[in-house]
Amino acid sequence: MTETVAAIVAAHRAGQQSPAQTVARSFKRIREHNDPAIFISLRDEKDAVTEAEALSAKDARELPLLGVPVAVKDNIDVAGLPTTAACPAYSYNPTRDAASVARLRQAGAIIIGKTNLDQFATGLVGVRSPYGIPVNPMRSDLIPGGSSSGSAVAVSTGLVPLSLGTDTAGSGRVPAMLNNIVGLKPSLGLVPTAGVVPACRTLDCVSVFSLTVDDAVAALSVMAGPDRSDPFSRDRSFAKLSPFPGGLRLGVPRDGQLIFFGDKAQEAAYAAALERWRALGATLVSFDLEPLYETARLLYEGPWVTERYLVIRNLLASSPDAIHPVTREITIAGSRISAADTFAALYRLQTLRRTAEHAFAGIDALVLPTAPTAYSTAQVLANPIELNSRLGTYTNFVNLLDLCGLALPSSIRPDEIPFGITLLAPAGQDALLASIGRVFQAQTKLTLGAKGVVLPPLADLSLDLTGDEIPIAVVG
Amino acid sequence: MTETVAAIVAAHRAGQQSPAQTVARSFKRIREHNDPAIFISLRDEKDAVTEAEALSAKDARELPLLGVPVAVKDNIDVAGLPTTAACPAYSYNPTRDAASVARLRQAGAIIIGKTNLDQFATGLVGVRSPYGIPVNPMRSDLIPGGSSSGSAVAVSTGLVPLSLGTDTAGSGRVPAMLNNIVGLKPSLGLVPTAGVVPACRTLDCVSVFSLTVDDAVAALSVMAGPDRSDPFSRDRSFAKLSPFPGGLRLGVPRDGQLIFFGDKAQEAAYAAALERWRALGATLVSFDLEPLYETARLLYEGPWVTERYLVIRNLLASSPDAIHPVTREITIAGSRISAADTFAALYRLQTLRRTAEHAFAGIDALVLPTAPTAYSTAQVLANPIELNSRLGTYTNFVNLLDLCGLALPSSIRPDEIPFGITLLAPAGQDALLASIGRVFQAQTKLTLGAKGVVLPPLADLSLDLTGDEIPIAVVG
Repeated sequence: MTETVAAIVAAHRAGQQSPAQTVARSFKRIREHNDPAIFISLRDEKDAVTEAEALSAKDARELPLLGVPVAVKDNIDVAGLPTTAACPAYSYNPTRDAASVARLRQAGAIIIGKTNLDQFATGLVGVRSPYGIPVNPMRSDLIPGGSSSGSAVAVSTGLVPLSLGTDTAGSGRVPAMLNNIVGLKPSLGLVPTAGVVPACRTLDCVSVFSLTVDDAVAALSVMAGPDRSDPFSRDRSFAKLSPFPGGLRLGVPRDGQLIFFGDKAQEAAYAAALERWRALGATLVSFDLEPLYETARLLYEGPWVTERYLVIRNLLASSPDAIHPVTREITIAGSRISAADTFAALYRLQTLRRTAEHAFAGIDALVLPTAPTAYSTAQVLANPIELNSRLGTYTNFVNLLDLCGLALPSSIRPDEIPFGITLLAPAGQDALLASIGRVFQAQTKLTLGAKGVVLPPLADLSLDLTGDEIPIAVVG
Repeated sequence: MTETVAAIVAAHRAGQQSPAQTVARSFKRIREHNDPAIFISLRDEKDAVTEAEALSAKDARELPLLGVPVAVKDNIDVAGLPTTAACPAYSYNPTRDAASVARLRQAGAIIIGKTNLDQFATGLVGVRSPYGIPVNPMRSDLIPGGSSSGSAVAVSTGLVPLSLGTDTAGSGRVPAMLNNIVGLKPSLGLVPTAGVVPACRTLDCVSVFSLTVDDAVAALSVMAGPDRSDPFSRDRSFAKLSPFPGGLRLGVPRDGQLIFFGDKAQEAAYAAALERWRALGATLVSFDLEPLYETARLLYEGPWVTERYLVIRNLLASSPDAIHPVTREITIAGSRISAADTFAALYRLQTLRRTAEHAFAGIDALVLPTAPTAYSTAQVLANPIELNSRLGTYTNFVNLLDLCGLALPSSIRPDEIPFGITLLAPAGQDALLASIGRVFQAQTKLTLGAKGVVLPPLADLSLDLTGDEIPIAVVG
């Protein structure tokens, strides 16, 4: 069977396999895969299996994620497991689930463990952690990508079909590309961030990794919605998927604005992706990226690093050596920024947001490479800050501009490096991105993740994906 | 005739008086009133009269402010007059009107001059200006209120029927109370702030002073709406006035939360105002002010003073003596605040905003005293910072919480000090506040401003107030 979320839920509902069996299989695969850098902590297997067995007492039709094993990035609270943010000295034992996790459980998901990350979610590389570097299952010399490294690798290797990441500047998208999976970064405030260790509180999102767009939508659908305990939550919910629209207008960078740092294979892969969109009937429209690039520079040079500083200020003062040296160097800079610089940056951002809003009014979505190139672990360890920064070329501005994003596998380059694109649109357009992204993904004919799973036929949208029945077609 | 905006426009349309005559009368009254502290600069009278004469070439039905003389606070640009912000060393000569002023002119208004203010709009008192202290026409020992001191006094004394102020923490409301006139503080972003010297850019509003609520609405209706040149502008417009609603729920402070600094007359006047609301059929609902008070403390102790610092940073460095000593002392504090303090305050504000949103969901509007008491000029000069701060008790939190406000005359106390109330509601409810406020104002039977003008009967809402015809009833 194909092990998408949809297939697992269908199998459970049909009685072909029990949730307990599926959970046990996850644990078995984790042991067999034997990469100690993917998970920072694992749940007690018996507890997880018992929780899965208890699902049989509930109404399966009301559990859209019935018995789905889920991995959770270790900056998101899961009751009963420590939250480390990849910093042992920071670790604490939460007594309750993060709001996002609680909603997944409520929908029938079973949490399996907590995954590795660039410490404090600072980084796009996945190498900044005392818990090791998860091996990239697509090409072992490559970085796994970060900061949600473990969550992305866990899905790509089939240990779980679904995982949570977080995304402040690309942490939910760059690792998706490098692991040949889907990375969904919702609109700010759509999924509550209560119970998440902040990176930049004003910019943080809980994100989703999965093999298919529909699987990500299934998770987002249950996690979306306002939460009174989270002041950054917004009064929004996830709209429904819709058929691929006629007359789709997709923005692409103006001539000369694309950046690949000399990576010709990446450039060719992006051009091929655009061809695929044209073949799907989309019109490509020239879009000025300069205001987006300026916003990205603002993130790096501006005051937002101070938000990261606020999170670990006490630890920096009491135990600076407990912090990863690269993370420490980056974060300490946040202590030296003034309120004057902060407001000046907020003013500039306000202007850039308005500029972007007007630009987006002319298109349905923007299509960009998820990252301009890929690096090996050796390269990143030798030049940790500059190469990390390059990887954020097409992701850093997204949260500042209040956009939603969907990272999709697009092709495998001749050198076996996975290439992906990201769809971007103004906040609130999450369902549109998924609606067109799922069709694009089907069109690529790529196998899913690192395990060669074949993409099942797309579910019929005339049936309710999150409702009481998963269309048979999905089982594939 | 009564000299409301409505009456002036009706007289012009009926041919009973020409716009040029009305403008000339404004200049004559300014000369006769002879308070040099009200205006910082006056327009050349001939130019203004010529502009008024030129209106005859236009279609009167398309000019809702046909020939209405308007005074503009001197931190708002008017082409041809210097903008000083009450600081000669800061002065510059704008080549174009502020967006708000341009929209008034487009509607037929004639700008008469620029009015005095607490320097850089920092203050609620009207005594912090090198251009003198406008005499309060209600009781000459009282402060005029600020920061929009000259604009409020100009309307109260009948020099003009309409003026613009600005409002960041109460500058458009406190002087309205102290001058027995209406002060309308629109929702943030409803009226563009392009061409306004910022106080706190993230909180600034252009505000309106007038004798009646309907006059303020007439001005707001033409000034409201998005402006691409102002990144803080929002995609909003002013809704229509509606009849007084049945079942109106008005919030009033919980027992023990009212603050009057021992002013029993103010306390009694507020209680009488609430009685009037009850008589109008409103239900009074207990409302917890503590989150609002906490927000006000955040404004005083938090990072927003840094926004003021950014405006005059260069001047503070080059010519500190050119700045009013009280303003200088307050503003320089903004140079010492960190980005860490700023984000911490923004987080707290976000929580307070959510708390306020939920509280406002249970009421239609909140009714508060506009200020807790009134002070004489002598008192304020002796204790300039503390007494100023007290005056902001019921106004300081409003812009931070993204509320709209309408300050209304309520009664004249036995000691001849004017008392006023302010209606507050979440952003976007400007029309609701005006719809109920106009009925309250009519019910007070107070004469308007300092000149004993009798409030004309309310216009019939079945006719379009901003349309091509002013109802006859308004002429009164």
